[in-house]
Amino acid sequence: MRALVYHGPGNKAWEEVPKPTLLADTDAIVRVDAVTICGTDLHILKGDVPAVTDGRILGHEAVGTVEEVGSGVKNVHVGDRVLVSCITACGSCRFCRESRYGQCLGGGGWILGHKIDGTQADYVRVPFADNSTYPAPVGIADEELLMLADILPTGYEVGVLNGKVAPGDVIAVVGAGPIGLSAIMGARLYSPSHVIAIDKADTRLEAAKQFGADVIVNNGVQDPAEVVAELTDGLGADVAIEAVGVPATFELAARLIRPGGRVANVGVHGEAATLHLEDLWIRDVTITTGLVDTYSTPTLLKLIVSHQVDAGQFITHHFDFGAFLEAYDVFGRAAETGALKVVLTRA
Amino acid sequence: MRALVYHGPGNKAWEEVPKPTLLADTDAIVRVDAVTICGTDLHILKGDVPAVTDGRILGHEAVGTVEEVGSGVKNVHVGDRVLVSCITACGSCRFCRESRYGQCLGGGGWILGHKIDGTQADYVRVPFADNSTYPAPVGIADEELLMLADILPTGYEVGVLNGKVAPGDVIAVVGAGPIGLSAIMGARLYSPSHVIAIDKADTRLEAAKQFGADVIVNNGVQDPAEVVAELTDGLGADVAIEAVGVPATFELAARLIRPGGRVANVGVHGEAATLHLEDLWIRDVTITTGLVDTYSTPTLLKLIVSHQVDAGQFITHHFDFGAFLEAYDVFGRAAETGALKVVLTRA
Amino acid sequence: MRALVYHGPGNKAWEEVPKPTLLADTDAIVRVDAVTICGTDLHILKGDVPAVTDGRILGHEAVGTVEEVGSGVKNVHVGDRVLVSCITACGSCRFCRESRYGQCLGGGGWILGHKIDGTQADYVRVPFADNSTYPAPVGIADEELLMLADILPTGYEVGVLNGKVAPGDVIAVVGAGPIGLSAIMGARLYSPSHVIAIDKADTRLEAAKQFGADVIVNNGVQDPAEVVAELTDGLGADVAIEAVGVPATFELAARLIRPGGRVANVGVHGEAATLHLEDLWIRDVTITTGLVDTYSTPTLLKLIVSHQVDAGQFITHHFDFGAFLEAYDVFGRAAETGALKVVLTRA
Amino acid sequence: MRALVYHGPGNKAWEEVPKPTLLADTDAIVRVDAVTICGTDLHILKGDVPAVTDGRILGHEAVGTVEEVGSGVKNVHVGDRVLVSCITACGSCRFCRESRYGQCLGGGGWILGHKIDGTQADYVRVPFADNSTYPAPVGIADEELLMLADILPTGYEVGVLNGKVAPGDVIAVVGAGPIGLSAIMGARLYSPSHVIAIDKADTRLEAAKQFGADVIVNNGVQDPAEVVAELTDGLGADVAIEAVGVPATFELAARLIRPGGRVANVGVHGEAATLHLEDLWIRDVTITTGLVDTYSTPTLLKLIVSHQVDAGQFITHHFDFGAFLEAYDVFGRAAETGALKVVLTRA
Repeated sequence: MRALVYHGPGNKAWEEVPKPTLLADTDAIVRVDAVTICGTDLHILKGDVPAVTDGRILGHEAVGTVEEVGSGVKNVHVGDRVLVSCITACGSCRFCRESRYGQCLGGGGWILGHKIDGTQADYVRVPFADNSTYPAPVGIADEELLMLADILPTGYEVGVLNGKVAPGDVIAVVGAGPIGLSAIMGARLYSPSHVIAIDKADTRLEAAKQFGADVIVNNGVQDPAEVVAELTDGLGADVAIEAVGVPATFELAARLIRPGGRVANVGVHGEAATLHLEDLWIRDVTITTGLVDTYSTPTLLKLIVSHQVDAGQFITHHFDFGAFLEAYDVFGRAAETGALKVVLTRA
Repeated sequence: MRALVYHGPGNKAWEEVPKPTLLADTDAIVRVDAVTICGTDLHILKGDVPAVTDGRILGHEAVGTVEEVGSGVKNVHVGDRVLVSCITACGSCRFCRESRYGQCLGGGGWILGHKIDGTQADYVRVPFADNSTYPAPVGIADEELLMLADILPTGYEVGVLNGKVAPGDVIAVVGAGPIGLSAIMGARLYSPSHVIAIDKADTRLEAAKQFGADVIVNNGVQDPAEVVAELTDGLGADVAIEAVGVPATFELAARLIRPGGRVANVGVHGEAATLHLEDLWIRDVTITTGLVDTYSTPTLLKLIVSHQVDAGQFITHHFDFGAFLEAYDVFGRAAETGALKVVLTRA
Repeated sequence: MRALVYHGPGNKAWEEVPKPTLLADTDAIVRVDAVTICGTDLHILKGDVPAVTDGRILGHEAVGTVEEVGSGVKNVHVGDRVLVSCITACGSCRFCRESRYGQCLGGGGWILGHKIDGTQADYVRVPFADNSTYPAPVGIADEELLMLADILPTGYEVGVLNGKVAPGDVIAVVGAGPIGLSAIMGARLYSPSHVIAIDKADTRLEAAKQFGADVIVNNGVQDPAEVVAELTDGLGADVAIEAVGVPATFELAARLIRPGGRVANVGVHGEAATLHLEDLWIRDVTITTGLVDTYSTPTLLKLIVSHQVDAGQFITHHFDFGAFLEAYDVFGRAAETGALKVVLTRA
Repeated sequence: MRALVYHGPGNKAWEEVPKPTLLADTDAIVRVDAVTICGTDLHILKGDVPAVTDGRILGHEAVGTVEEVGSGVKNVHVGDRVLVSCITACGSCRFCRESRYGQCLGGGGWILGHKIDGTQADYVRVPFADNSTYPAPVGIADEELLMLADILPTGYEVGVLNGKVAPGDVIAVVGAGPIGLSAIMGARLYSPSHVIAIDKADTRLEAAKQFGADVIVNNGVQDPAEVVAELTDGLGADVAIEAVGVPATFELAARLIRPGGRVANVGVHGEAATLHLEDLWIRDVTITTGLVDTYSTPTLLKLIVSHQVDAGQFITHHFDFGAFLEAYDVFGRAAETGALKVVLTRA
């Protein structure tokens, strides 16, 4: 079969590899019908994720069709159309019992395209298939469903739910890339009074408006703290969501928050940030971090089916599997191409 | 009347000053019967709290008897024996409506012995008396009650409740000074499976055992992370409570926490700490900060009355008002004298 | 001044009475600019609320202008345009400290038009004015604001928040009168997947659609349990909100709920209902009751200002004060006249 | 092997039956080392639980040793000493994903000794063994551990956690049988200020004292409402736990509660109760029902290991398997024999 294979920092190829086979009785083999590329895949390609070694098939998001299941798979059947989640869950460990699947101690967590071969291929082996796939609802297009594999639950769980967004709140989202947009879309489900998108790229800020931000701030030219202060009687935002992953944006988020407010970090960080405890100790703030658990996937599926969430809005580019390298190129030059999410489908 | 007056960094005096008078109709004048000294008072004396200016009477904890009340005071009456809380609350602002009295926007918060004259005197003027004092229960000694003015609610609210301590949890308390001990005592109310006290002074660790720690670690000689790992299958503590207020202890607390755990900062910090987001972003941690609000005072009063909390345990030294300077000296040399809380009573 | 005065069961008059005066230093006298009639006022007129005695001025909802304030009123000033809430709060008692103002032990709670004279008059005395009024935001019409005096916070707090409505939920609202509509409007703030309105009057069900119900069931002709089952894989509704106040509707709500679901009772009941514990004991249900506390009023004000809530939708009829009896007549014959909320304004 | 077999209302026998075999790959066969009898078993024997048919082996609580496991069992191994929980969990259905195992839709829930053969036998087949057994901690006796199979998590989850018992609360427990005692023991973990046990049998009330009740009321001779009122300034209990299962005790629990309080129903009911909504609608009460889910079992295991919970206190009588009928007799005449829990062990 064909697959997108990592060959060390800077090197990847769309090449022929052996088709995966069942390794455990709880595995399923899924034929990939639609797949996307995540910002994390770009990080891996730079060599930032040492756990990923030469020869690994990338990708942790897919919609596909079940080809084969192990004898221990109970709820997934050959021929089922399924969402393959970025998080794999053993279902029995301490953390899985608490719905904290991202921290699975039983061999799951984020493993696809990381510790085992991933979804950017004709076929993928999905461990613990009963707990790591979701039945595709009738009437929802593959590509829309695909947005529930990672980006939507990440923004919703790690940004919106960790940040305890509530009706009437003022929400500041630092970073208007795909994750920031996902947080904006998720925040709107709770009817905040204002969602303020902050970024240095005007094109991203324009996208943020489409996703539900009613206030945009280019923090290259304007101090977001002033904008937030004006909307909040000088108190600060109820919730600040960090959606970039560098110290400066985290520190900005922490600076925007009101006494008693919440900072929800969604960004993937490579270095330490400064926590201004000399200011924050007295301000009753809550800071959360997290990897997505995908416990909200059933909820998001209902919201897509009932048209409360328009997941298709993320998709800016379509390719077929034969154009995988081109898709990486377009996604990798997002600033230029305006790419949010690119979707690759089996021709 | 007599009062302990701040005269700039390093200078204080027990001297004669005018008796306070009612300034607002919601004020009460309270005769101070018992008072204590807080670690914060020592900070003020070093000049660390610039809002405190020359001539200020220190102190924000007292038990006393109401001498006079303004016409707007409804629930407090002349002759009532009351607890004077470290936090003053207007009762009507946004934050007071959310029981977040420490952040009061209406002129309250921590003001006694800070922005206005405090309790280390024969008499104190208590603003917003209805919301800033609590009736003293019959049968509870002044000095025991006095521990509810600041130290007990601080450890309980900012450490235990912010940290969401729950039955069966493993709790690490970094720092076994009075605040750490208060957190230990408060944590025990929730039946954790282990409370681990961490400090560099063996005498403090011995005190921690008396307050309910079942494991003690001198982090001058042993790595607390190893002890925590051993008690938690290598996962880390469910809750880590920071009770010192310097970067190293905060960073230690953050290092001890399990995935999904909570770090509750109680310490008063003078400088920034390093937040290792490169490790923490993926670990689902929650970090909280806070000033005490004293919303738990009614609960703690019930617990003292029903003998669930033995507040008297904090009190190591007794003085009368005439010995105020000596009390400061003993409390200031706590490492030597073993002082936890010193109580001064009207002779 | 003029006022709508209760004169025993079945009797009321719009008559001349003395203007109220300040009785306590925390009172305000408010000139009533807009007022409405509540279903509770109709109950009172039938004699169902014995605490209301001959001579009482009715009404517990108003928007007005402050004429005079007592010396103890700090935050409300003469000339302020304010919302007068149906709930009065002393601000200091145990329940007010927990934001449970409806249960105020200090002389507040629901007292206007009940235990003291109310708002259906040219002027009203508002006790504890600091905690019982809210500043009117600029740019919001009196009549829209008036909906925040009772109906909106009641549906939102007692129905939506007690019921813990969450994104993706299926919500069944039993009763599509004004309170049911308020619950529907409030529920929409949380992006449920379906809101099912249940009533026996098709006109009410049509109104329910306007307020956000996407499914309507006339339970005179169709079994709501079947409709709910179809939308929920046979499990039942996540939340059922009772908005009528008779045993049959409560029992219906309890029958519609899924295992683990919540029944939020908003209706005012005059008799006991049957609780089928033989079915419910095993089903993990939560049942809540409650009087509105109006703790959500600040949130709802933000939502009105940011146009997330269109409160004007409730208003079906306008009158001036001179037509008070006619307004009662129209509101009292709601089934015929289609009245939801009638607004009376000073000419 | 030997087993206690139900033969229709009133009939049971300790008789020879075939040893169970694996039916699904997720099954385990467990040799029963210790087993107990539940009040529910007595109900079954009266014919109250029609789902239990002639030939069924009773019992849903055991500690035993794993004899054989299916190929799909991952975490349980032959020779393991395990707790067999009263609740079986598929681990993958909607409710199992929310830790609501008692409502399992995938074939679990309460099935042992109910829909399939149970634990009162030499061997038992345990479905979904990975999610339905717990490793026995070293150093804890079988019989103590056995109390975690049902009685302790039931009182703790359905009584204490559903009732949101908190430090300082006044808790009323209606019924001082084994379930009421379990709720009392569980409530003590949260340091309530008072636990009031209510029963008509003085011997049970004496037991309640041993389990942590500090106030006892024989409601045959004294009105519990008066006792509660005296301890709560006339407001009522913060939490009332119903632990009997008849209308009168539920109605009593509902009558004891303060405004804003919680009624947690633990009792198994056979008929409807009267819910006095005419009183309760305005009082902000929360009523919960529930079957145990055993999600707290890992927590309770930690508490037993750390000696916070003394589970052995329940055990009043010991038998070996040969004396099964005698054990039933003693347990069935609890009023006379004082039996709380009887333990049967393999000789």
